[in-house]
Amino acid sequence: MLKVKVITMGKCKEAWLQEALAEYEKRLSKRALISWVEAESEAQLAKLLESEPYIALDPKGELLDSLSLSSKLMRLFVEKGSRITFGIGGPDGIPPSLLEKAIWRWSLSPLTFTHQTTRLLLVEQLYRAFEIDRGSPYHK
Amino acid sequence: MLKVKVITMGKCKEAWLQEALAEYEKRLSKRALISWVEAESEAQLAKLLESEPYIALDPKGELLDSLSLSSKLMRLFVEKGSRITFGIGGPDGIPPSLLEKAIWRWSLSPLTFTHQTTRLLLVEQLYRAFEIDRGSPYHK
Repeated sequence: MLKVKVITMGKCKEAWLQEALAEYEKRLSKRALISWVEAESEAQLAKLLESEPYIALDPKGELLDSLSLSSKLMRLFVEKGSRITFGIGGPDGIPPSLLEKAIWRWSLSPLTFTHQTTRLLLVEQLYRAFEIDRGSPYHK
Repeated sequence: MLKVKVITMGKCKEAWLQEALAEYEKRLSKRALISWVEAESEAQLAKLLESEPYIALDPKGELLDSLSLSSKLMRLFVEKGSRITFGIGGPDGIPPSLLEKAIWRWSLSPLTFTHQTTRLLLVEQLYRAFEIDRGSPYHK
């Protein structure tokens, strides 16, 4: 079982988002286990991101299509011993000094999304990446 | 009051998505009224998109950050007499022949999203675009 950790800021309060995340986590549960670590302050977020290799969600990072993302993530799971950690910043994003320490800076889009929406897009792309990897018709 | 029409494929079935869309539509209601036109087939979608100028949501379209998007949309609202129509395709996107007829091909991301997620991102970016336009602290 692959392990995915997501380090993020603040709680997931919206009921609709909790429902959407639960749906994707259930679908993902055959391949990967997702754990959420919710920092309560910028300082705590910094401490968490400094403690391990992570992929930074960064609007100015590298843009990939879903096929290339799938290949990249599958390669990273192998390289990193089946464990990947993602970091999502708060309203101001991830501080530049911490961005430099990321193993990869990935951009979902040059658009700014709320960190709630970013959580949803992250799990949907993870699910899609696995479906692409196993050649399912989910992604066509 | 600005009018935004979104022509899309299929129903919005997920309860969480309905809740999220309702929340953004409520927030948007001071500036814009959103109406959804849900085509039941590719043929009906084509007919609807051929009948008026529209902005195509297309992963291969132009990528903008949220500030540039806000300026672009505000300019379009003026040019188009306060009415803008967006088109979201089904699982296979918008057919090439209809993409050519779009007044603008806009990409939320090179990633493929479900058309449900695309609806959510569209309303969130519309809301963000208006907040940027009025100089609110929502987007910083």
